[in-house]
Amino acid sequence: MSQKIMAINAGSSSLKFQLFSMPDEQVITKGLIERIGKQDAIFTIEFAGQKQKETLPVSDHQQAVDHLLKVLLDHQIIRSLDEISGVGHRVAHGGEAFRDSALIDDAALYEIEQLSILAPLHNPVNAIGIRAFLKALPHAKAVAVFDTSFHQTMAPDTYLYPLPYRYYTELGIRRYGFHGTSHKYVSQVCAEKMDTPLSELRIISCHLGNGSSICAIQHGRSVNTSMGFTPLAGVMMGTRCGDIDPSIMPFIAQREAKTPDEMNLLINNESGLLGVSGVSNDYRDVEQAAKNGNPQAQLALRMFANRIRDFIGSYIAHMGGLDALIFTGGIGENSRTARAAICHALDYLGISLDAGKNNSNETFIQQSAAPVSIAVINTNEELMIARDVMRV
Amino acid sequence: MSQKIMAINAGSSSLKFQLFSMPDEQVITKGLIERIGKQDAIFTIEFAGQKQKETLPVSDHQQAVDHLLKVLLDHQIIRSLDEISGVGHRVAHGGEAFRDSALIDDAALYEIEQLSILAPLHNPVNAIGIRAFLKALPHAKAVAVFDTSFHQTMAPDTYLYPLPYRYYTELGIRRYGFHGTSHKYVSQVCAEKMDTPLSELRIISCHLGNGSSICAIQHGRSVNTSMGFTPLAGVMMGTRCGDIDPSIMPFIAQREAKTPDEMNLLINNESGLLGVSGVSNDYRDVEQAAKNGNPQAQLALRMFANRIRDFIGSYIAHMGGLDALIFTGGIGENSRTARAAICHALDYLGISLDAGKNNSNETFIQQSAAPVSIAVINTNEELMIARDVMRV
Repeated sequence: MSQKIMAINAGSSSLKFQLFSMPDEQVITKGLIERIGKQDAIFTIEFAGQKQKETLPVSDHQQAVDHLLKVLLDHQIIRSLDEISGVGHRVAHGGEAFRDSALIDDAALYEIEQLSILAPLHNPVNAIGIRAFLKALPHAKAVAVFDTSFHQTMAPDTYLYPLPYRYYTELGIRRYGFHGTSHKYVSQVCAEKMDTPLSELRIISCHLGNGSSICAIQHGRSVNTSMGFTPLAGVMMGTRCGDIDPSIMPFIAQREAKTPDEMNLLINNESGLLGVSGVSNDYRDVEQAAKNGNPQAQLALRMFANRIRDFIGSYIAHMGGLDALIFTGGIGENSRTARAAICHALDYLGISLDAGKNNSNETFIQQSAAPVSIAVINTNEELMIARDVMRV
Repeated sequence: MSQKIMAINAGSSSLKFQLFSMPDEQVITKGLIERIGKQDAIFTIEFAGQKQKETLPVSDHQQAVDHLLKVLLDHQIIRSLDEISGVGHRVAHGGEAFRDSALIDDAALYEIEQLSILAPLHNPVNAIGIRAFLKALPHAKAVAVFDTSFHQTMAPDTYLYPLPYRYYTELGIRRYGFHGTSHKYVSQVCAEKMDTPLSELRIISCHLGNGSSICAIQHGRSVNTSMGFTPLAGVMMGTRCGDIDPSIMPFIAQREAKTPDEMNLLINNESGLLGVSGVSNDYRDVEQAAKNGNPQAQLALRMFANRIRDFIGSYIAHMGGLDALIFTGGIGENSRTARAAICHALDYLGISLDAGKNNSNETFIQQSAAPVSIAVINTNEELMIARDVMRV
């Protein structure tokens, strides 16, 4: 029997939604409410081939949810609220408490709010979104799908930092990793397309967007990932620096009398592609500037590719080999030059890109005889959330 | 004609010396003055098969140098101070000014002191050692040999951090790398022992001691190294954490109200093997505790090996292949279990250890048919310093 499942991604002033018919995985409608809290909030919805946009006052997430459900009824996208049998919520941080997606009850919601200490910008607003739907759709099952839970399979010698041990036991400082829903989804799709069980593959997944992370997936389990205690760590991103010598932090703090909050701002919002290029945090803008001869933009692109290559090498060492390399996310799916720069001269590792296939955006872009498959796969976190609602 | 060259390594309260006959590279005498500044400083010297030790008051480095030279004359190790034709000084930081070892004149000494901002614990005391010898041996050539200069061949896309560009131009924040003298020395010895020109080899050198760093050496030039802006970065060390998510720094600073200086102390002196194991910063102690079943010690050893494996993978990606892997430094030269853990299951990368050769401490410990040579080479920074004095 077909069911309607809603996938929700709540931000501080936005709410993205996508309604699926399951298990056939058809998108019934999707859209976005932006500028929540303002008099001129924007509501966008696509359904039955149409796209509608309206501007209206939306005071909070509860009102956003109520308006969304009203629109669904008004346009007869659903005939009754009871038709929505489940709502899946993207939640940033599941800590060590959530090793998988979880049915939301009072205890789970309490735990999600407790974890706000580890994700102060995301978990509180995720919890607000959950409460709003619980109130509006009390009969629907609510499921939390965490960015972190896919990575809970990492071993302690991978997830611990070489700090005094008490920082782990007392403050929960360890590698958590993020983008788990995306890495899990694309690894499953890749295995299907390779017609090989996921349990037999060693995969490196490169989710490259404004936030980027790399994940080593051995036999379907995340064994290492580049983001860490926070989504800052790892590769160079749009505005985040990724890994740097930690000593740079107190050095700058002292030289420029910066507070911890100001340091966070520097490394999260002013660094990465933006900081080096001086042009933009958007890879496409930096690419354009590099083409026009801007040397800092060219430098930023080389650094971006280098740091991803470093992780690819590390994760091959970690897994003792590689069967497939996946590119996903805005940059991974769309920039053939990024993919070419990342795969350049990695034949020793079994990675040999076919320039023609790469330029024509085929799904598999390795040379025919190459031992490692290179796949370009569109990520779909919303679908993964809907699937998890069905499973949980 | 044979010359006598002194190699000097000055610390904040110590001075190590080694007197070579060059170019035959024979050690005439070597020793150490410890506890400089105390009433009970300790002077140790080895020569002609004897070892002598005395306790005496030594107020400063100048007095230490004067005493050393007096002892050399008293024991007739040299007949006149004029016999010492050159003194090579290990200097921690050469910044971007010194791409090679340098003859010390007023300008060079001024520059070394200026670079104290980047190495506040080391460069000032290195300069004190230089001044003391300039005064005592005004006729000897003085040469500075920098820990950083070997790495000045790194490309900008390797040495820059993804921070706002002005941090490089204004504050000199970039990857410098350290242990350069050691990495250079062992790579040269390795090439000789392989009977292959260094210019044809891609080498990864693992200098593993209480401080550890990994270096990618392509055709004799350092192209990447794990230490960074400071010697904290990279792999896990005795008391240093190496690379961690930089966001952990402001998180701990806020939660525990720590100043930048206290954060530096935490990551430099309380972390690494010591922090995780809770046992010791000494690898041998941690190894013993692990053998006795201490789970945190076992964890620390696994983390130590993992992080080195990560760099080996990265640097193979960086160089597009590998011809030789070198182990050096106290741990690299002596711990067969560390070498075995690091090389475990890296056959995909061409690295296959021969357990028998490893256990019997042979120079080359790879399996006969393995594509990558694995070499155990005793480092000798003092000899490299003496060689550089002759060259410069």
